[in-house]
Amino acid sequence: MPHPLDVEDLRTRVQKALDDHVSTQARRLEELGPDVAPMVDCISDLLRGGKRLRPAFCYWAWRGAGGEDRHEVLEAAASLELFQAAALLHDDVMDDSDTRRGAPSAHRRMAVLHRGNGWTGDGERFGEAAAILAGDLCLSWSDEMLTRSGLPDDALARGREVFDLMRTQLMGGQYLDVLEQVVTEATDGAGSLERARRVIRYKSAKYTVEHPLLLGGALAGADPALQASYSAYGLPLGEAFQLRDDVLGVFGDPEQTGKPAGDDLREGKRTVLVAATLEAASPAQAAAVRRRLGDRHLGPDDVELLRSIIVDTGALDRVEAMVLELVAEAEAALAAADVADPARQVLADLVGTATARQA
Amino acid sequence: MPHPLDVEDLRTRVQKALDDHVSTQARRLEELGPDVAPMVDCISDLLRGGKRLRPAFCYWAWRGAGGEDRHEVLEAAASLELFQAAALLHDDVMDDSDTRRGAPSAHRRMAVLHRGNGWTGDGERFGEAAAILAGDLCLSWSDEMLTRSGLPDDALARGREVFDLMRTQLMGGQYLDVLEQVVTEATDGAGSLERARRVIRYKSAKYTVEHPLLLGGALAGADPALQASYSAYGLPLGEAFQLRDDVLGVFGDPEQTGKPAGDDLREGKRTVLVAATLEAASPAQAAAVRRRLGDRHLGPDDVELLRSIIVDTGALDRVEAMVLELVAEAEAALAAADVADPARQVLADLVGTATARQA
Repeated sequence: MPHPLDVEDLRTRVQKALDDHVSTQARRLEELGPDVAPMVDCISDLLRGGKRLRPAFCYWAWRGAGGEDRHEVLEAAASLELFQAAALLHDDVMDDSDTRRGAPSAHRRMAVLHRGNGWTGDGERFGEAAAILAGDLCLSWSDEMLTRSGLPDDALARGREVFDLMRTQLMGGQYLDVLEQVVTEATDGAGSLERARRVIRYKSAKYTVEHPLLLGGALAGADPALQASYSAYGLPLGEAFQLRDDVLGVFGDPEQTGKPAGDDLREGKRTVLVAATLEAASPAQAAAVRRRLGDRHLGPDDVELLRSIIVDTGALDRVEAMVLELVAEAEAALAAADVADPARQVLADLVGTATARQA
Repeated sequence: MPHPLDVEDLRTRVQKALDDHVSTQARRLEELGPDVAPMVDCISDLLRGGKRLRPAFCYWAWRGAGGEDRHEVLEAAASLELFQAAALLHDDVMDDSDTRRGAPSAHRRMAVLHRGNGWTGDGERFGEAAAILAGDLCLSWSDEMLTRSGLPDDALARGREVFDLMRTQLMGGQYLDVLEQVVTEATDGAGSLERARRVIRYKSAKYTVEHPLLLGGALAGADPALQASYSAYGLPLGEAFQLRDDVLGVFGDPEQTGKPAGDDLREGKRTVLVAATLEAASPAQAAAVRRRLGDRHLGPDDVELLRSIIVDTGALDRVEAMVLELVAEAEAALAAADVADPARQVLADLVGTATARQA
């Protein structure tokens, strides 16, 4: 059996579709001269690193709704990777992240280009501007790729309903996430776990799993019952995906995640894991967490201390239990759904890919 | 005679279309809770301030190609204002601008909200993140508004060719602009004026006039000859528009421009006006310009000194002569074009609106 993401050679074909699209756009930018190339290179390199989960959910929802294996649907599915690239480029600027997918983030890389060329002015600001524009390009290219996928107009019109909702709700969700990092300590405790779950619902669960599934279903003309099944499977799975991400952001192996150990703690992310920790922490533990969370210069000892508090408060166990519960919910929904084979099997296998991963 | 921008009640109808679109999107965000509202308010307020030149060029190109006055084309034309709002929101973050259209820029306004609520963390970073996300929303809403305008699929397919090219080339042009601000002094002098003109070609001329015209023409099914005429009229007019903007950025009345006096000098913009100044400056004048350009704390005396150098080197006269030449070129192209009335007259009047303005 191939890896669930490689059935029908999906990852290779998505990569090819993305490479072709970026090449076309690069040609379009050629008349502006060669100076734009480094920004396009950032985009190409970033696009090489994705997990391809979103295209996979889109593609297999299409197949599960009776759609045939066609180049056009791969194009539509791959457009989700461009959208994700846009979100990551802007996210890394907003969070001032150093690394992404095991390499320097785009704004850092462009700042290095600035320094290497001995340009004047503030290299960090230059890097941020370039990364914002690179994200804008990806955002535009994403809907262009969907629209030019070659699927019929009526299929696209159905698909765009989902695509447009996804974009707006993701950006709203990202804003809630940013807001969550700046709320006062007084609003920790009661309600913060609920708020953190609301954030991952919009920032991640819908966007990573549910909306890609609904996009594939809509493009294939899935009936409302099947779309409801995709939601019932996708939403809990998407939440579980993000909870796994949160755990990896604290406990993950840097070799595998491509991010420094405890990076989420350094960035001060108000994850469900952190909210669960603060909810169960003693006053002393809570103070120790608050003092360190979001400290950009957090050392290995501090990361270790925070990890031990997260474990000792039972927060890690609690989040792992949530993951199991959500996974069971997703699996039950899939079992009850009227999904054609082989899509049913691949979607079942993707549950593990999304939630039992190390990176 | 009404103002050229008010023929067929264009400005009012564009505003109405934008208000309706943002209301629809705001409803879609309601399920995320009330916290997202301030970001949406930033967008609504920003959208109230535009000149509406881009929708006007789009609309009148449609009419000039024989299209009838229809609600759908107003929707398509208004989508350009959402795209412009996205560009402005991100531009203000990249340039760290304090003001926009006579009001605080969105990232400043959101930073004030942060302070007012006593939130934790860095308010400036919060404001920037919110403005980046607001821009992403506008970017998504822009193509959604175009796609849902109600125009037939074949018209939209033609229009999207222009729309997609416009987006990619604008972002490429913006990158060239950012790059131009950080090139070393060694690359001033020879070639810098040419480079500055290349920047305004992609960053402004195509985007503000030519592409909106071509969008309207394409939607209406204009023949290649008419589209070529629109380019021949639009490109020089767009350059003249930007040269006027550059002059206003240095010599404009803050009451009218909505920006502090000499703001472009403070931001260190490498405009054609600045390039022409450096090209003709004595070594002492050039040193005086370089020392002050891009100084965020430039006082009124410094602005006055820079203005006098720009005048004394003949750069202002030279740029004004360029404007006249470009305007004549645009008018000649329009005179030779096969454009239906009343579009011909309105497009002729829009030349003055775009280039003889005070704000």
